[in-house]
Amino acid sequence: MIDTARSTVGFIGTGVMGASMAGHLLDAGYPLIVHNRTRERAMPLVERGAVWADSPGAVASLADIVITIVGYPSDVEAVYLGEGGILQRARRGALLIDMTTSTPSLAMRIAEEAAARGLQSLDAPVSGGDVGAREARLTIMVGGEAEVFARAEPLFSAMGRTWTHAGGPGAGQHTKMANQIAIAGSMLGAIEAFAYAKSAGLGLETTFAAISAGAAGSFSMTNYVPRVIAGDLAPGFYVKHFLKDLRIALAEADALGLELPGLSLATSLYERLASEGGNELGTQALWLLYDRD
Amino acid sequence: MIDTARSTVGFIGTGVMGASMAGHLLDAGYPLIVHNRTRERAMPLVERGAVWADSPGAVASLADIVITIVGYPSDVEAVYLGEGGILQRARRGALLIDMTTSTPSLAMRIAEEAAARGLQSLDAPVSGGDVGAREARLTIMVGGEAEVFARAEPLFSAMGRTWTHAGGPGAGQHTKMANQIAIAGSMLGAIEAFAYAKSAGLGLETTFAAISAGAAGSFSMTNYVPRVIAGDLAPGFYVKHFLKDLRIALAEADALGLELPGLSLATSLYERLASEGGNELGTQALWLLYDRD
Repeated sequence: MIDTARSTVGFIGTGVMGASMAGHLLDAGYPLIVHNRTRERAMPLVERGAVWADSPGAVASLADIVITIVGYPSDVEAVYLGEGGILQRARRGALLIDMTTSTPSLAMRIAEEAAARGLQSLDAPVSGGDVGAREARLTIMVGGEAEVFARAEPLFSAMGRTWTHAGGPGAGQHTKMANQIAIAGSMLGAIEAFAYAKSAGLGLETTFAAISAGAAGSFSMTNYVPRVIAGDLAPGFYVKHFLKDLRIALAEADALGLELPGLSLATSLYERLASEGGNELGTQALWLLYDRD
Repeated sequence: MIDTARSTVGFIGTGVMGASMAGHLLDAGYPLIVHNRTRERAMPLVERGAVWADSPGAVASLADIVITIVGYPSDVEAVYLGEGGILQRARRGALLIDMTTSTPSLAMRIAEEAAARGLQSLDAPVSGGDVGAREARLTIMVGGEAEVFARAEPLFSAMGRTWTHAGGPGAGQHTKMANQIAIAGSMLGAIEAFAYAKSAGLGLETTFAAISAGAAGSFSMTNYVPRVIAGDLAPGFYVKHFLKDLRIALAEADALGLELPGLSLATSLYERLASEGGNELGTQALWLLYDRD
């Protein structure tokens, strides 16, 4: 049963992640207005009761709360700051939540322009992948004012398992960058460990059983090395999206005057994988750079 | 009560790890003969009933099973292959178990020379650190013949939580190298993630709460980042010992014709840390290379 007392939510970007997340909001009883660049991908939500709108601006003109999860920072910029976009057409007092992984500086710029127009905003990128989105077990990292964070918590609780107020505008994106930097290292270590094991003639399943639960263990090893052993390089999480994140992290670190040689190396390895045609594979396909059989 | 039906065990190397491990064997009722380069460190075991012997060879001449856990491959070579060492003086049919993290090639050489003398041998390095040794929760990675592994399992069960037969002679050391390569990556990622977070002005505790249980998580992050946040760079696991392991792994990978840029980078960073006086700190002191305040 739909709770009509709830805020109307606009949802822009119903790709693999967004479709699951918007579905949870429908399940929770929020009246939903949806838009997606590729219309067909939003239709399953429309069949479940969401209303289609023809542009991001049109969504914003109808919603109390607008959530976006689109591809790249350039997409975020276009839907928020473009002609006829969200900021121009949002209703006074509306809450805008960008859940795309994007740049901290863009998040801060949107927050400023939103405030100047009497709007509230949060940057709230997620971690947990397609499975986390589907099972409402996402980790949500949130930047913005504390009272705005509090206003959004009922929505986060419908989509995620943990949500953290990381600080002011941009802090959600910065936290997500820290998250991706850690993954870059643990994935690199796990893949190199098993490349070594294979080269040394060890059984990969035996090696996994011996080391994955101990000091060498990581989410990356536990969740991705079994796929590598099974020959499954399909995404989970796309190389092209991870590479986008790593490039942002590297640019941000650079802007902060911080040298991160591990991040630099991981980025250059994923650049190489992408240049060799790996963009549409999963992040565990880093394996291909080592396993040249 | 001592079970005198049990094999007599010789234990060489009663440092931080070895003292705990030998203590568990005493607890399990094994008659124990001990030797250590620094005599005083073995005295607590002698007070609990172990018998002191003046050299590795003297230990071997009295024991059914000889366990070694010494510092460096050069030490392993000396106690096994040196004049009057273990191989020369071991009793026919004795089982020799080297639990030092050492080179696979040396493990294979010892196995060959042991077999030529009618002795059995295993390479069985451990992971889990001082706490794992103290609490008998070590991960033990074992190379050697299957029936020799089976003979040693009662001893492993007294010292460890998991023990895996990884393959023939040297496979235990190769598995340990895979383990250390994975740790190098996950530690590097965790440290760089929090160096970024600090630089970006995030709260480190908040960041830890937001990301450590998700896709960015690892044993390294869970166990070492809280020490970094607390300003505690004491060993856990010494930089000098980790560096020894990384150098062995790098040399082995090189011998296998395998390029591991992540391992190379981590090794060079730990070399730098060591050259700046970090040898006696814990591995989490990698932080010092990033936090220049």
